[in-house]
Amino acid sequence: MVTIKDIANKLGISLGTVSKGLNGASDISEDLRQQILDTAVEMGYTTKKMKKEEHKKLCLFIENMDYTKPEHFGYDIVLGFKQAAYRDKWDITILPVNPEFQQKEKYDTYMLKNGYSGAFLVGFALQDEWMSQLNYTTVATALFDNFIKKNPNVSYIGTDSFEGIDTVVEHLVNLGHHKIAFLNGSLHSMVTEHRQQAFYESMAAHGLEADENLIANGYFVPESAKYFVPAFLKNGVTAIVCGNDLIAYGVIKECTRLGYRIPEDISVVGFDDLPLSSQTTPALTTIRQERIELGKCGYMALHSLINHVSVSKTLLRPQLILRESTLDYKDISHE
Amino acid sequence: MVTIKDIANKLGISLGTVSKGLNGASDISEDLRQQILDTAVEMGYTTKKMKKEEHKKLCLFIENMDYTKPEHFGYDIVLGFKQAAYRDKWDITILPVNPEFQQKEKYDTYMLKNGYSGAFLVGFALQDEWMSQLNYTTVATALFDNFIKKNPNVSYIGTDSFEGIDTVVEHLVNLGHHKIAFLNGSLHSMVTEHRQQAFYESMAAHGLEADENLIANGYFVPESAKYFVPAFLKNGVTAIVCGNDLIAYGVIKECTRLGYRIPEDISVVGFDDLPLSSQTTPALTTIRQERIELGKCGYMALHSLINHVSVSKTLLRPQLILRESTLDYKDISHE
Repeated sequence: MVTIKDIANKLGISLGTVSKGLNGASDISEDLRQQILDTAVEMGYTTKKMKKEEHKKLCLFIENMDYTKPEHFGYDIVLGFKQAAYRDKWDITILPVNPEFQQKEKYDTYMLKNGYSGAFLVGFALQDEWMSQLNYTTVATALFDNFIKKNPNVSYIGTDSFEGIDTVVEHLVNLGHHKIAFLNGSLHSMVTEHRQQAFYESMAAHGLEADENLIANGYFVPESAKYFVPAFLKNGVTAIVCGNDLIAYGVIKECTRLGYRIPEDISVVGFDDLPLSSQTTPALTTIRQERIELGKCGYMALHSLINHVSVSKTLLRPQLILRESTLDYKDISHE
Repeated sequence: MVTIKDIANKLGISLGTVSKGLNGASDISEDLRQQILDTAVEMGYTTKKMKKEEHKKLCLFIENMDYTKPEHFGYDIVLGFKQAAYRDKWDITILPVNPEFQQKEKYDTYMLKNGYSGAFLVGFALQDEWMSQLNYTTVATALFDNFIKKNPNVSYIGTDSFEGIDTVVEHLVNLGHHKIAFLNGSLHSMVTEHRQQAFYESMAAHGLEADENLIANGYFVPESAKYFVPAFLKNGVTAIVCGNDLIAYGVIKECTRLGYRIPEDISVVGFDDLPLSSQTTPALTTIRQERIELGKCGYMALHSLINHVSVSKTLLRPQLILRESTLDYKDISHE
């Protein structure tokens, strides 16, 4: 077991200085404190602070995702996580982060110096600095929509994107559609990649061609639609699958602007089932992600990791929510 | 909501007879009772019995797996499940089943008539009658080592076989081995298929050829070894990956019988980490499945399903346990 003395020896400094660094005393330089913490982390040293019942603290880091209002995707995830964690008497910090913050602070060091026992990371992109650090983290970490191979301290929580997209394609095929487009988000996230791969696989499984002209990657915002929908329509699509609900809102708007009716001319399907998706005109057929439960599963996974049970993966079932934006192909008036 | 009257109308019998059938009265024929129960299940009728707190009952069905002694693979899974479930005050029945039983009893009907709120199914094979029925079951069902697509009432619990086999191959490659054989169980189970696929993928990922002459499927018993190990040795293998620990015991015995030393001549790796694997000569390097935790996860998944949270998949991390049966290739005396 690593002691303060080991850290002192390694750095060639006194026990007292190491102690000051670990306890956040103000009479040593910030650079030295950082060095002490980095070394402690590297050597696998754990402060008592992290283990004491009375200092039970978890952090939820959130990036690139709105979460402050109920209509935001992240709102219920944060809520579910807090609800589950508070029950076990954890203090929770919700901390929005960005790439600059990740460049400045090493993940394990940040966790150690703030006395967090574990964290839930939500909304991180594949190229994020902390994502590569997670390959080696020694801190209990639950990760929404991202998977880290072979590190027993990291757990992946999400909704099964493969089954979700396959359910959408199956629904449209059952309605008689075969010219189906897919407007996805950018391929900077694992789930976007999964949904794209799922679309190819599912189209093939249903004996349909996944036409490259009908597959595009924008961003997870409504504005993506106007760049890709006109070409889809020109190519004769009768249905558009969207990487999330926000994209679907944009697709409905753009189709309408160009004189196409939803669902009479074009069927549109989203992914997520945001609160507003039942209020759009027409109401959106979509895949529901149970976000409150995803937040709770995030806590459950973290709880397991902290208790040395290495849960690798927790996936929730996607659920098809049928509303008004999809219609039987045979009911559509085609020239 | 389906009522007793709906069932009576559908079958053209009286309310009283339906009630007798549902409550197990003895003055109607067994055939008629079965028909009433089958119809009730088919129509989605749920008895109050299943919902009453005072009749909280779960069943653990176990097939094709030893579980009565601590050294058996199933022992800790059953134990973990019971431990977790008893905490929530469930009554648990442990019921060994076989193919004949599954032919005789429909799964949903059996659950309904015995008042079970849910079940954990352990050791089932792909071709089992109940496995196909699970595609449509309305009963909360946790399933060890098997996955059912798109049914929100069924949840898969297991250890990540892909990561497990990849960890083994990586370990052997790091030791300098490249002539690596794989003796797996029969391909009648999902995890056996996963481990086989993982072996091909992992060999390719490490730039090695997965030679068809060095891959074989026996059964998950030590006796499998004698049918395949002689040919492996003739083909010049230096390492043998086994589909489970029982096969590895047989491989060690067969190699020894043929005059090969473990690990000096041949490295051997198992999968499972049974209690006896630390006691073999030499002690077995293997992949650990946390069976107590798998049992607990089985209960947690079932608990979620019963509370209408559709957990699709819970995977635990495999862990490489290094013992004496693997050795650096460069340390091996080769001609």
